Amino acid sequence: MKFVRFIMKNAAMASIPKHVEHFSKFSPSPLSIKQFLDFGSINACEKTSFAFLRQELPVRLSNIMKEINLLPDKLLSTPPVQTVQGWYVQSLMEILDFLHKNPDDHKVLGEFVDTLVTIRNRHNDVVPTMAQGIIQYKETFPQDAVTNQNIQYFLDRFYMSRISIRMLINQHTLIFDGTTNPVHPNTIGSIEPHCQVGDVVQDAYHSAKMLCEHYYLRSPDLHLQEMSGKSKQQPVSIVYVPSHLYHMLFELFKNAMRATIERHENRDLPPVHVLVSLGGEDVSIKVSDKGGGVPFRRIENLFSYLYSTAPAPQMGEHVRPPLAGFGYGLPISRLYAKYFQGDLQLYSMEGHGTDAVIYLKALSTDSIERLPVYNKTALRNYKVRQAADDWCIPSREPLDLSSYKVAK
Amino acid sequence: MKFVRFIMKNAAMASIPKHVEHFSKFSPSPLSIKQFLDFGSINACEKTSFAFLRQELPVRLSNIMKEINLLPDKLLSTPPVQTVQGWYVQSLMEILDFLHKNPDDHKVLGEFVDTLVTIRNRHNDVVPTMAQGIIQYKETFPQDAVTNQNIQYFLDRFYMSRISIRMLINQHTLIFDGTTNPVHPNTIGSIEPHCQVGDVVQDAYHSAKMLCEHYYLRSPDLHLQEMSGKSKQQPVSIVYVPSHLYHMLFELFKNAMRATIERHENRDLPPVHVLVSLGGEDVSIKVSDKGGGVPFRRIENLFSYLYSTAPAPQMGEHVRPPLAGFGYGLPISRLYAKYFQGDLQLYSMEGHGTDAVIYLKALSTDSIERLPVYNKTALRNYKVRQAADDWCIPSREPLDLSSYKVAK
Repeated sequence: MKFVRFIMKNAAMASIPKHVEHFSKFSPSPLSIKQFLDFGSINACEKTSFAFLRQELPVRLSNIMKEINLLPDKLLSTPPVQTVQGWYVQSLMEILDFLHKNPDDHKVLGEFVDTLVTIRNRHNDVVPTMAQGIIQYKETFPQDAVTNQNIQYFLDRFYMSRISIRMLINQHTLIFDGTTNPVHPNTIGSIEPHCQVGDVVQDAYHSAKMLCEHYYLRSPDLHLQEMSGKSKQQPVSIVYVPSHLYHMLFELFKNAMRATIERHENRDLPPVHVLVSLGGEDVSIKVSDKGGGVPFRRIENLFSYLYSTAPAPQMGEHVRPPLAGFGYGLPISRLYAKYFQGDLQLYSMEGHGTDAVIYLKALSTDSIERLPVYNKTALRNYKVRQAADDWCIPSREPLDLSSYKVAK
Repeated sequence: MKFVRFIMKNAAMASIPKHVEHFSKFSPSPLSIKQFLDFGSINACEKTSFAFLRQELPVRLSNIMKEINLLPDKLLSTPPVQTVQGWYVQSLMEILDFLHKNPDDHKVLGEFVDTLVTIRNRHNDVVPTMAQGIIQYKETFPQDAVTNQNIQYFLDRFYMSRISIRMLINQHTLIFDGTTNPVHPNTIGSIEPHCQVGDVVQDAYHSAKMLCEHYYLRSPDLHLQEMSGKSKQQPVSIVYVPSHLYHMLFELFKNAMRATIERHENRDLPPVHVLVSLGGEDVSIKVSDKGGGVPFRRIENLFSYLYSTAPAPQMGEHVRPPLAGFGYGLPISRLYAKYFQGDLQLYSMEGHGTDAVIYLKALSTDSIERLPVYNKTALRNYKVRQAADDWCIPSREPLDLSSYKVAK
């Protein structure tokens, strides 16, 4: 019997490439926040959601699995990346099991929820595991600009795909587990129809403040201003996923506090200013510190996965600064912002401080998932190789003008 | 005799492609501001500068002439673009004339200065003439994203090349015309070794203010703050070309004033804030208004040559707003910033206002010309064609979930 199960499993595994091939031919279907809400409204139909997910999850998984296969062999073959790839294969198989099951059977629907929970838990550590693979890869290979560009391209797409898959899973499991959220009874899954931006700002600020005071024994104050329409100062509310917004703001506050404290040793700390502005299209949230800023040349590196996964320093030799703000905090926060067609940008004034702006869509119909799709354009982007720059590379060597000197 | 000259000229014209081929094989030699100063120092040698320019100008001209030839036929053949191309051919010929002349002959050096002045004047109207060509082209052809991208790529390089050629010509003619600048005796050509950023801010503000009051009968105040090192508030000074900085600031002030006035009709005008900050690498200049901002989605269009060259509206039918800030003001200002390795960025908070930041290099050794070079990478960029997006295109159509509905 055990042997039969072994054979069966191997047979299923062997058929995986065929399934990936099949489902990656479909484009993922981006949902708007409005559509997510409709799924969870009073007329929510678990069967419809089940039928959608058993098709859509394999499509999203297969699209990104095709891209994992395009990684350089030396990265793909690292044990951590092999582990991650195994999780994707396993989870895809488990969902495919439901393709031909009966949606009218309540037992099937219940099993589906359980399977989704299992999958979500299995993938909890994808980000640090993948990071470990990148570290192993870069210990052996040179970190040139092209490698950086390729890894940036892949991880932005891979983590975005992951955010979207977890969103789908969370919505289905939260809505159809038969209970309501005791703390936030109005949320629909993880979406809050009346998300008070100022409240999330306060929450994220206070968490960062606790962490900051734990390490530094003090922290800068918060100065919050909200602009809702022409010169009206009132709370701004949007339909959004509060946990995503919290994630971004917590990251920005940690960075702002650390910069402020390191810049103003033994002096009064200038507050961190937050301005929330509501327009016809955008909700913009600016977090401004007077922490001395970062040189313009280094801003893009703050979003780099390759340059930020420096191997952890040896204990005792060099201790990481607390609230370090390195790691994947900023690039992942930017993905959360982009996930619903927003963005996250940093503007620094070296010698003064940094402004970070989160842009979100004001309308739930504009907040549509941004999803990677595997196609020829994507394939081409994995084949980018070193090419000459089409702008002159400024040399720091002095120009040899003597060659132009004319003999007297 | 006239006939002989005609024959001679035609023979010279016929040899132009050969010369362009030859000189475009060289990469331009970017100079740092420091090197520009050395050219103009007490030991300045007119012969050395002459010998450098008679090689470098043909190199820069030929590199960009190769790219003009890569424009789509339908754009290249418009009368304005033909005119511009004719100017480039003519100017190249005039400089090539000096290739075999004797640098020890003062008459030759004098003629060279005269020739450079003639060339500079000939090219005065390149920007509006080229813009006219773009307008004629886009009246007949669809303005798709790829066309926009190709034209943006070319014009950024073409205008940058032009800025650099004029810089070389200005330095030579100003330094070696035998006089000193009566207004700014310390300037070396067009470079000011002690450029007080605050003074240029004031100059640009006052010019924009005059223009603004002429149209609107009022204007917002200026609030200027300078940060020079840790919490020190003192004037910031750099080695720079004041006319370039003025050009950028004047453009930003016009935009800031117009936005402020249109947003605050019949109410008090909030001031335009300028913050100048000096760091170890950067000088950053932020111009902030409370003019209501621009949606995030439209920011990049503000830098587009294609989308900003709307044909002038019919007189009487629709009058352009004064201080319109459209046209090529922003993209050209950004090129001035990038020319010496800086940048110009806009970040707006819709519903509140806009911050524009100019980044310049603090050190004259870091301020190195950014020059386009014609090579295979550039060639490839002119062959960009429409490709599928590698991210799903969000559809505004509702997702048809009925296809997932399961029959009862």
